[in-house]
Amino acid sequence: MSAFPDRLADAVRRHGPLCVGLDPRVEMLPRAYPQAEPAVAVESFCLKVLELVRPFCGIIKPQAAFFELLGPPGFAALQAVQRRAKELGVVTILDAKRGDIASTAQAYADAAFGPVWDADALTVNPYLGRDSVEPFLTVARKATPTRGLFVLVRTSNPGGGLFQNRLCDSRPLYRHVGEAVADWNAERIGDCGLGDVGAVVGATHPAELAELRAALPNVWFLIPGYGAQGGTAADVRAGYLPNGLGAVVNSSRGVVFPFHPDDPDWEAKVVEAAKKAQAELKA
Amino acid sequence: MSAFPDRLADAVRRHGPLCVGLDPRVEMLPRAYPQAEPAVAVESFCLKVLELVRPFCGIIKPQAAFFELLGPPGFAALQAVQRRAKELGVVTILDAKRGDIASTAQAYADAAFGPVWDADALTVNPYLGRDSVEPFLTVARKATPTRGLFVLVRTSNPGGGLFQNRLCDSRPLYRHVGEAVADWNAERIGDCGLGDVGAVVGATHPAELAELRAALPNVWFLIPGYGAQGGTAADVRAGYLPNGLGAVVNSSRGVVFPFHPDDPDWEAKVVEAAKKAQAELKA
Repeated sequence: MSAFPDRLADAVRRHGPLCVGLDPRVEMLPRAYPQAEPAVAVESFCLKVLELVRPFCGIIKPQAAFFELLGPPGFAALQAVQRRAKELGVVTILDAKRGDIASTAQAYADAAFGPVWDADALTVNPYLGRDSVEPFLTVARKATPTRGLFVLVRTSNPGGGLFQNRLCDSRPLYRHVGEAVADWNAERIGDCGLGDVGAVVGATHPAELAELRAALPNVWFLIPGYGAQGGTAADVRAGYLPNGLGAVVNSSRGVVFPFHPDDPDWEAKVVEAAKKAQAELKA
Repeated sequence: MSAFPDRLADAVRRHGPLCVGLDPRVEMLPRAYPQAEPAVAVESFCLKVLELVRPFCGIIKPQAAFFELLGPPGFAALQAVQRRAKELGVVTILDAKRGDIASTAQAYADAAFGPVWDADALTVNPYLGRDSVEPFLTVARKATPTRGLFVLVRTSNPGGGLFQNRLCDSRPLYRHVGEAVADWNAERIGDCGLGDVGAVVGATHPAELAELRAALPNVWFLIPGYGAQGGTAADVRAGYLPNGLGAVVNSSRGVVFPFHPDDPDWEAKVVEAAKKAQAELKA
């Protein structure tokens, strides 16, 4: 199997940059999934959504928090989702925003890229510095097939700039983080021309997205904030490279919950939302 | 039951500032815990350590990564440890370094302070800014009894300064994070004179610890890096307030793994290590 950046490129070439974010909120599930055993309901719902969106996207991003909230059975549900995605040939980005010192970072990485989650990529928080990210990289590169990271650079939330936009040596902090990403990423460039250490850059800051695209020409971007958070297809376009690669655009609620829990036609609404998002983002 | 900062003060007054970090590495367990079912072994070992160190410390810090690495049964082991600590009246700081945007942060907080982990406090990463920390605060303050946060300010790892020490407006980034902590913390000061939003400040940077102590006089500090990471009892003293409160000093490997796996006297070694650490830190 090919290296991580090339698997991602293959998914984007086939299906476009749409990534469907799985943030399963129990209270938003269709009534057809009774909530007596929330982890069971979440698992069945996620597997169904995976099947519904598969024709329109080659990448999913499960959000660890919503599975953690369900306790140990929730983690088993996340494992089932990861396994099924793999069977379907879908690239998985586990959104857990991990970050810790040396041996602890290695334990998180072993979980992410080993039998526990077996993810293709993991989101990582850079606040603890270079030696906190490197254990993730080491484990990702030793795995078969190789895995990737997405380091938080400029996040999509309204208050994300509080520290990320602080000027340090006349440039915002996120540019310094971006430089560290560029250094790591340059160590393993795939056949597609992009590397294995991506950057999370929110759709809600299109000017900064364009600036980072110019500064990091061979870095994959994971772009949250499209759809329910307010970013448009036009906003994310600044993240694309001329060859159509370079960006993975996430939509969570917009694709996964475009219905009222009582709606008997919820499956058709999910399909419609995924189809629409794919078309918008491909154009 | 009293508010979080006062429960912590009570633990420190009774037992001193020692916090025992539970980083259960399967390969380091005593041979008496067969590794065929690693999560079972880890659970039994942690419960035994909890009992052994209880006379010398009133605070523990389980490290989520090492439980996550064992999959769903590992999370069940973490739940068992949290439950037992509660029965023993031990304050629990769940070291998971969570951090995410709005509703996701709330899911992590609901897990940390609700039935899933039921922790007294959680470590939180500030890179995503103010609106990513506030959902944790809201949930912590609504819980009964109230809970607390420890925000990463200046971490103990050798490379922690890469971003944390960047100068922004002529002060290092960690001072700006410290200011945000001070603002949140000031909103809920307990009877002990300290608040509910603490700061993680490594023992490995004593000058910065002293500087932050002066800048944040009513903030609880969680001080990792004492013991195996190289920080000494003299190094951490700068984190104490004149009344002996203000600091929670963590030792993980130094107290939990001061033995070879083949050592039949491992229990006595743990007791001795905990006793010694307590005495050193109290002096």
